[in-house]
Amino acid sequence: MRERDYIRYLRGFQNKPKGVLVGIGDDAAVIKLPHEDLCVLTTDMLLEGTHFCLKGDKGRLVGAGLSLRLPKATIADVGRKAMACNISDVAAMGCRATLALVAISFPVFTKMGLARRLFQSMRQTALEYGVSIIGGDTISGKGPLCICITLLGRAEGLRPITRSGARPGDAILVTGSLGGSILGRHLSFQPRMKEALYLNKNYNLHSMIDISDGLSLDLGHIMEESNMGALLLEEDIPISRDARRLSRETGLSPLHHALTDGEDYELLFTLDPREAERLLKKNPLKVPVTLIGYIRREKGLFLQSPDGKLSKIRPQGYEHR
Amino acid sequence: MRERDYIRYLRGFQNKPKGVLVGIGDDAAVIKLPHEDLCVLTTDMLLEGTHFCLKGDKGRLVGAGLSLRLPKATIADVGRKAMACNISDVAAMGCRATLALVAISFPVFTKMGLARRLFQSMRQTALEYGVSIIGGDTISGKGPLCICITLLGRAEGLRPITRSGARPGDAILVTGSLGGSILGRHLSFQPRMKEALYLNKNYNLHSMIDISDGLSLDLGHIMEESNMGALLLEEDIPISRDARRLSRETGLSPLHHALTDGEDYELLFTLDPREAERLLKKNPLKVPVTLIGYIRREKGLFLQSPDGKLSKIRPQGYEHR
Repeated sequence: MRERDYIRYLRGFQNKPKGVLVGIGDDAAVIKLPHEDLCVLTTDMLLEGTHFCLKGDKGRLVGAGLSLRLPKATIADVGRKAMACNISDVAAMGCRATLALVAISFPVFTKMGLARRLFQSMRQTALEYGVSIIGGDTISGKGPLCICITLLGRAEGLRPITRSGARPGDAILVTGSLGGSILGRHLSFQPRMKEALYLNKNYNLHSMIDISDGLSLDLGHIMEESNMGALLLEEDIPISRDARRLSRETGLSPLHHALTDGEDYELLFTLDPREAERLLKKNPLKVPVTLIGYIRREKGLFLQSPDGKLSKIRPQGYEHR
Repeated sequence: MRERDYIRYLRGFQNKPKGVLVGIGDDAAVIKLPHEDLCVLTTDMLLEGTHFCLKGDKGRLVGAGLSLRLPKATIADVGRKAMACNISDVAAMGCRATLALVAISFPVFTKMGLARRLFQSMRQTALEYGVSIIGGDTISGKGPLCICITLLGRAEGLRPITRSGARPGDAILVTGSLGGSILGRHLSFQPRMKEALYLNKNYNLHSMIDISDGLSLDLGHIMEESNMGALLLEEDIPISRDARRLSRETGLSPLHHALTDGEDYELLFTLDPREAERLLKKNPLKVPVTLIGYIRREKGLFLQSPDGKLSKIRPQGYEHR
């Protein structure tokens, strides 16, 4: 395909939501942000063979003594994932994703049909979450498919929730269940934007992150940024069915997968235990929420087994190779 | 190198300019924009082998019957170019570039030293133009080096200048001189941000674009978006010394190179002829400004030779292959 034909195609989907003065097709997009609101910005790059495989012959998740092959994805899966993992980043700030810029490097000889399906999937995912694509860049070259989406979000008067606000005694909570996302959920996950906004609006969250690197590693990020330690309650960690399935293949425990597998894209957050109790009592969210441990002043990450024994664990996760 | 070591390195350069509440190291950056100002957003992807060559053995500019090899660049050249071409896009809107998000996909086995030199060059170029890097993404994989920078800018109370505002009778002006950028200027160009801001502040610009695809093609963009035609005055087009040098290699005329070579990153703009006269009389800019033609209601792009003869030309430029 020719880049300019593709760009012409993209412009057919031009819609200028409120506040967008100049959209696709100029040197830059121009937006007007609501008075005094905070703007949230994130960018994520996805590379064929590293974060997804279209042909199923490359790409491994490596870590914790294992090397797992990435399963084959469709181009629609890829478009969905590229948009969704950015939305998840904005959700992890407790904010609303609104606008996207999409840059794509296509391998030479990419067919227009594939490029269109990729865009349609990104656009559809964006629409599901109220996000408008307002610009981007399209290039091609002798590399694998590479997608870089930049997402803008709005705080809507709320306080953005960082990784650095965890306090001693905070309860650590997580949405959904964890582990084994490589069996499919790493493509089909639902970014928890509504949930994050609801939590930020109704509870005094101290810190939050989305689980992309794995529970122990992402909790490690909160610990590092907040200068705290943490204790996880082994029997309270919500282990997904996929973690159990994967465990039968790998010989590692389901708990191990829940602790170290990445790309769950669930919310991990901390708040005062009384606030946590108020949330858990009625759980107004449509996904399960579980209390899995506590923030401690003492450094390090500890796992408490059902018999009360503490063991120190090292934050670890898988890396894309 | 390991990605997390590199990210730790990047965070050492964390500076939070005014208005940046959360910078590098969280799920997203958080910024507060000045009251009621417009925000300008652009993203550009650069790929090794397509937009630059580190080894000098790949990458061609193809078009207008020619195929030119991209010369070898240093990693510092690449960092500079990646930042500068984004800044040029914001300049082309008549606005000020302020904040950048930098996403990089490194080939596996990239050495930390190279990654650092790349970042230092991007950072240095950003600083020269008052731009702060506030976030990004770092990945690696089995592809060539790929850089995607997203730049935010501010209108500072000015009206952003689009491609679509050209009016019949407008004078067409251009900064600097054109053609032959492949001999070096495609790496070393100066984005015309100061000039663009000065012009936008002091003159009533109707339309503007930066010359990245080539004069005739970029003027074509203005014509298309403004639904107008144009006439170029052959003998007034400022031909660069590089266009003359390249012409001796290619056998094509220097004018041909000035009309069709890309990556000059000069400003091309239109305004009322009386405004143009006021600008040309004293030229307050530090770069030359030349009147090269007029916008016409009649469609198509025409070239007027010194003897007054008109010939219709097709907007064309080179494409990266």
